[in-house]
Order: sequence, then C-alpha cells, then structure tokens
Amino acid sequence: MNIKTITISREYGSGGRIIGKILSEELGFDFYDKEIVSLVAKESGFNKDYIDEVEEKKDSKFWDNPYMINTVFNFKDFNKSNISNKDKIQIIQSDIIRNLTNNKPCIIIGRCADYVLNDREDVLNIFIYSNMEDKINRVINEYKVDEKDIENIIKNMDKSRANYYEMYTGQKWGNTKNYHMSLDSSKFGLRGCIEIIKNLLD
Amino acid sequence: MNIKTITISREYGSGGRIIGKILSEELGFDFYDKEIVSLVAKESGFNKDYIDEVEEKKDSKFWDNPYMINTVFNFKDFNKSNISNKDKIQIIQSDIIRNLTNNKPCIIIGRCADYVLNDREDVLNIFIYSNMEDKINRVINEYKVDEKDIENIIKNMDKSRANYYEMYTGQKWGNTKNYHMSLDSSKFGLRGCIEIIKNLLD
Repeated sequence: MNIKTITISREYGSGGRIIGKILSEELGFDFYDKEIVSLVAKESGFNKDYIDEVEEKKDSKFWDNPYMINTVFNFKDFNKSNISNKDKIQIIQSDIIRNLTNNKPCIIIGRCADYVLNDREDVLNIFIYSNMEDKINRVINEYKVDEKDIENIIKNMDKSRANYYEMYTGQKWGNTKNYHMSLDSSKFGLRGCIEIIKNLLD
Repeated sequence: MNIKTITISREYGSGGRIIGKILSEELGFDFYDKEIVSLVAKESGFNKDYIDEVEEKKDSKFWDNPYMINTVFNFKDFNKSNISNKDKIQIIQSDIIRNLTNNKPCIIIGRCADYVLNDREDVLNIFIYSNMEDKINRVINEYKVDEKDIENIIKNMDKSRANYYEMYTGQKWGNTKNYHMSLDSSKFGLRGCIEIIKNLLD
C-alpha cells in the first residue's frame, strides 16, 4: 500500500503519540506533533505561546466561524480578509500540514490532519484509544500527573480534543468512519499497534 | 495473540460478512451468521420465520424491556418468569453465542456478539465499514438488489442494525470503542482486511 503520510488521532493517555513517535523512527518518517506550532509561528508571525493557547482552548465561544476551514480556503486575498487571528492560525496550520505531506514521508499527530488531508489517497488515518485503567496508568507514569482527579483530567482533555475536532471539521471526533483504522491499544499493546500499522506499509 | 472467537459487526454492503466467511475458511474456524437463528429455533421451540421477524424489527416499540439483557440474565426460573417471547429469544440467543465460544474457534457475524462476549479475553471484536459508493456497488452485485433507492435501502438497513444494537446493549452501534479494531474496507479491500485480521492471530 502506497502510504506517504500517517495521521494519528488519539485519546489522551492511549499511547497514540508514542506509537507515532516509534513508528516514525522505525520507518524513517518525519514526525510532527508540537513541531507544527513552531512552523505556524514562523509562518504567521504569532508567538508560539499564543498559538498554543488558541489551540488548546477550542471551545465554541472561542471560535468566530464554525467549519470555516471549509469556506475560507478560497479567499484569494488572505491578509486583507476580515478574519480573526485564531482563524488565520487554523488556515495557516492546515496549509502547513498539506505542504509537509509533499516532502518526505511523515507522521502527524492530531491537529485534524485526517480531515485536512481527506482528499489524498496516499494518506493513512489512524485512531488510537484504550480503556480508562490503561490511560490512567500511562498518564501517571509518563506525564507525572498527580493521581488526584486523574480520570477527570483525562476526560476533560478528550472533551477538549473532541470540541476542537468537531468545531474545525463538522465531524465527530473518534467516530470510526473518519479514520481508515481504529485500534484499541489496551487489546494490542503499543508494540502490537506499531506492528499492525507497519504491516500495512509493506 | 490467543483468540478463539472473532465477532464481526458490519455496515450493510461493506463486505464484513464475506470477510468473516473467507476468514473462517482460511483459519479453519466455524462460521455463524443466519446459522444462529436455527440454533435459537431448536432451543426455544419458536419458528425460524418468527425469530427472523423479531430479529429484523428491533425498533423501540417492539421491545418490552430496553437493556433487559443486562438484568434478566439473573432469572433463575426462566420459563416461569413473566417475560415476552421476543425477550426470551434474545436471552436464548445470547446464551447460545456464549456456548458456541466454548467449543471450536469461531467467527460470529452481528447479533451484538461483541457485547455478549465483552468479558472474554480470547475474543476479538471487529467493525467493518466502507464508503457509500463501494456499498452501493457491492449490494447491487452481490445481493441483486434493484438500483432504485439503493442508497436508502442501505441507510435503512444500517439504521435498523443500529437500533437493534443500541436497544440490546445500551451502546452506540459503530462507536469505535465497542470494538478492538475498526477497518475501512474501501481503503484496504476485502483481501486487505482479511490479511490484517489474520496477522493478529499469528
């Protein structure tokens, strides 16, 4: 199967980011997670912290135009158009994601990349999830988060990701049909998920 | 991975049943789809056509007790208990599914088998879906259905399956998290899906 780009959407604590990181090393693919924020900062002139804040608070009141990514892309005169900084960041980020996939094969974590690239045949969209027990253990061990309220932290992170995705794409985050393959990392383990995905590229 | 039972839930026309059938032949697993109706008929004494009718009209008004499968299983005195024939059929079917998995390795299509067996570690739950174009072509070619209104037929079949599953389990049909793996047969092809699943059992 001719795959040049793998997008990985993932529940918080499911191990999806780690799966993507290891896959990128073993396949020799570039890896983009927070790296995209730096690229957006460079392209837009906005401060990285500002972009982070915009990206992490994507509830509905924070947005000027739901689903605007579908409509604003046709603006010929981007800089003069009457859209907010937040909207500009999303458009620039999507353009960057599209441009990245024209270079070296790469893996992109989150950022609605599955949606941004949904017209591309050489893209593989994966969703990774797991049971709550495994997510709690992983978040405690890897992110050194306090055990108190850990389940609520996980649920809020996923809710925030779902809101962001839905606002940005008009689709439900985690809905099977947005992805080519969804994997339960509790069932297969991180190594199992990596092997399943690698086998698709042989 | 030690897997004795594979359950396959599938969109109408996605090729999920064919994937299961070929898998069963190549793996030497037993295969259960409509065969389960015969087993339910034998066990319950109900006519096969009657069971078919009950199974295919699982909208809410047809049901006496939503989610009853969770609660009625504890009835010690099944025959004397005050539950309807339709409810009895569901309970008998779930018992049959559980018993099947204690014998030879098998593949079970639909019938909420993923939910019925959700406490079993040697069970692999798969969901198969595809894009509408592929579903239309497959339904026309394989089921010899008239092309007129084919998209509505497909949507209604899936709606009926979703209603049945939700009523029976309290979960959303096709929700990623009910399954261990979800596969887009439009992306991987039927043979691709078969190979992905076979690789899990090596």
